[in-house]
Amino acid sequence: MAMTAGPDLAYLGQRARIAARQLAGATTLAKDAALREAGELLADRADEVLEANALDLAAAEALPGTSGTALDRLRLTPARLQGMAQGLRQVATLPDPVGEVTEGRVMPNGLRVRRVRVPLGVVGVIYENRPNVTSDAAGLCLKSGNVAFLRGSSAAIASNRVIASILRESAAKAGLPEDAVLLMDDASREAATAFMRLRGVIDCLIPRGGPSLVKAVIEQATVPYVIDGDGNCHVYVDAAADLDLATAVVVNAKMSRPGVCNAAESLLVHEAVAREFLPRVAAALEGVELLGDEGTRAILPSVVPVTEADYATEFLDLKLSVAVVDDIDAALDHIARYGSGHSEAIITNDLGAAGRFTREVDAAAVLVNASTRFVDGAELGLGAEIGISTQKLHARGPMGLRELTTLKYVVEGDGQVRL
Amino acid sequence: MAMTAGPDLAYLGQRARIAARQLAGATTLAKDAALREAGELLADRADEVLEANALDLAAAEALPGTSGTALDRLRLTPARLQGMAQGLRQVATLPDPVGEVTEGRVMPNGLRVRRVRVPLGVVGVIYENRPNVTSDAAGLCLKSGNVAFLRGSSAAIASNRVIASILRESAAKAGLPEDAVLLMDDASREAATAFMRLRGVIDCLIPRGGPSLVKAVIEQATVPYVIDGDGNCHVYVDAAADLDLATAVVVNAKMSRPGVCNAAESLLVHEAVAREFLPRVAAALEGVELLGDEGTRAILPSVVPVTEADYATEFLDLKLSVAVVDDIDAALDHIARYGSGHSEAIITNDLGAAGRFTREVDAAAVLVNASTRFVDGAELGLGAEIGISTQKLHARGPMGLRELTTLKYVVEGDGQVRL
Repeated sequence: MAMTAGPDLAYLGQRARIAARQLAGATTLAKDAALREAGELLADRADEVLEANALDLAAAEALPGTSGTALDRLRLTPARLQGMAQGLRQVATLPDPVGEVTEGRVMPNGLRVRRVRVPLGVVGVIYENRPNVTSDAAGLCLKSGNVAFLRGSSAAIASNRVIASILRESAAKAGLPEDAVLLMDDASREAATAFMRLRGVIDCLIPRGGPSLVKAVIEQATVPYVIDGDGNCHVYVDAAADLDLATAVVVNAKMSRPGVCNAAESLLVHEAVAREFLPRVAAALEGVELLGDEGTRAILPSVVPVTEADYATEFLDLKLSVAVVDDIDAALDHIARYGSGHSEAIITNDLGAAGRFTREVDAAAVLVNASTRFVDGAELGLGAEIGISTQKLHARGPMGLRELTTLKYVVEGDGQVRL
Repeated sequence: MAMTAGPDLAYLGQRARIAARQLAGATTLAKDAALREAGELLADRADEVLEANALDLAAAEALPGTSGTALDRLRLTPARLQGMAQGLRQVATLPDPVGEVTEGRVMPNGLRVRRVRVPLGVVGVIYENRPNVTSDAAGLCLKSGNVAFLRGSSAAIASNRVIASILRESAAKAGLPEDAVLLMDDASREAATAFMRLRGVIDCLIPRGGPSLVKAVIEQATVPYVIDGDGNCHVYVDAAADLDLATAVVVNAKMSRPGVCNAAESLLVHEAVAREFLPRVAAALEGVELLGDEGTRAILPSVVPVTEADYATEFLDLKLSVAVVDDIDAALDHIARYGSGHSEAIITNDLGAAGRFTREVDAAAVLVNASTRFVDGAELGLGAEIGISTQKLHARGPMGLRELTTLKYVVEGDGQVRL
């Protein structure tokens, strides 16, 4: 595979388009066979993958300033490899979205109209250290009939090359184009920018990374994209909340995995229950740093004062901003102001409050009496996800196989012309 | 309404967000009442609209270089006004997409999950001369619960102001926020650029205009957008075509309204029928300039030689590029290379050819034995359209009310936490 941007990137792009035409007509049987084969090959060639990964790790460790977190994200272990292989096999078991007829009708003039689900074509993925994204993204793209055009980070280049070669080999063994998986392994920033401007080649770009990557895509991409953005998620504990249930949900939403986008970052408490609830939840949130407003600090004086910036921050850490609100309107206003449109929860037994919250909060997911942590593809029944969209166009919330497709009108007639 | 970009645009943006929150919860009854009221008011205040339009026309005529086409697009007549009023009343009769539950299930842990259709929020529309877009776009946005944030051209400013004020008044009369319709009437290029970068304000931008507007959006917009792009549409006449039917369809696709995006721009003819078909269709296409390849010119020597650029051009005129192809594969290749992904038709009685064409052509719409001119919202049963998307994300093909919505997950539990 090509190593530099410019002409080579254009060449890769041409190959991607050719493969997309072939892949669009692939049968589910062939795609599933390729996925199962890839799962087997990943297991068979585990040593080779781990050796490549060791090279990446050694190079990263030699670089001054590489954090432990970055190394952990880069690291593959036999268990992680097994997870990747299992993921590919699982995608093989999911229903194929391609070919679904989503609706149809006969028009008054006899035209027979139907809408059919078809692959997007070429899905570009720009991602950071985690080499598992290479197989996860390629697996979902392949099942949905799309070419996976991947641009991983330079740090994971050796690992990504081996993983991509395994996926390419598996596709070929199943009679599908090898170029169903293409790795663009020029690690320069210029190449990344050129990648996100491959209009006419990439039908959908999915950036998976931090705020600077997302910002670069918003500013520079000319291809269509779906943003997998921040999760500044709130839990609002209403006046009519069951406070035991509220405590359990807040603890789960904040503490079960603080580094992920569906973790809670902010707690809003109705003033009617604040005096009873706040001390109880603070005790349960042992190890979590609370940042509170005046209402909170009147009840929990040891809490650090919160700032506007804190309210707008996705901590991804054992930190939680807290505000006491006068009523549900104040909670709704707070969420409208600071929320990132990811996942928002209310804890209440009041039907009216639950109804207003679910109708009026503008987010990918709104939850009643449940943890924000449930907002992901597997937990909501999508089977697997390639990301969680915080935008409103095309995909909102967890993106599964269906979100990797588009629709085509098929219109059949008997010579109808328009008057 | 504000007249300049910068602080005023930001202020308009704030008002748009506030109105969007109010409008999202509006009942269908209220929205339909506003639409019917707007239809009445447009009729009642026709003189006022026509006077404003006369000012715009006078200003445009005084500008050197204004084309007759531009003046025609700008011109309102009593009949056109009646059409706009009728359009608003018709949108009132369409089903409201907001609130539709598109799917739902109970997860193994008892979580009740459903997806609900909700408005996008604020829909930005940048458009050129035609003042009817002001009421058409505002009507569709209003019905789908979205704020219409409009940026028309300077040429139509007086007309647009009166039409927008009528729509605002109608919204207010129905108890909806006046700011459901906001007109950004700063005509500068800087204001247009600032408008397409209102991230956090505009949830979806729809540019309706020529290639230079589309290019500006692709290069400069930071808000999500849907491209209403070119229609370089083909009709492929297969070896197994009924040639009378083919002639009728080609004539309709090219001649019934050559200036619109679903008109045919290119004719591909299987070599097995070229000698019989081409003279026949050329005679029927009286007044259409044909640009042909060698195969065409061997049969019709008077035809002008075609260039690569012609094949890639959306003429929007009484011109048609023509190629004789060896087989359906050559036709598919030609369409893959030059098509713009809008609408592509095959004329055939061969089941295999029809199947391959509908499956393998990558376009918003593929048609068998019918004119490409049918690809619009009304003809395909959408009721009305705000544009025709040639992109694959979010909306593909005619965009009706449903394409002006997004989905929200609503998840209800009884205290579930994630393990």
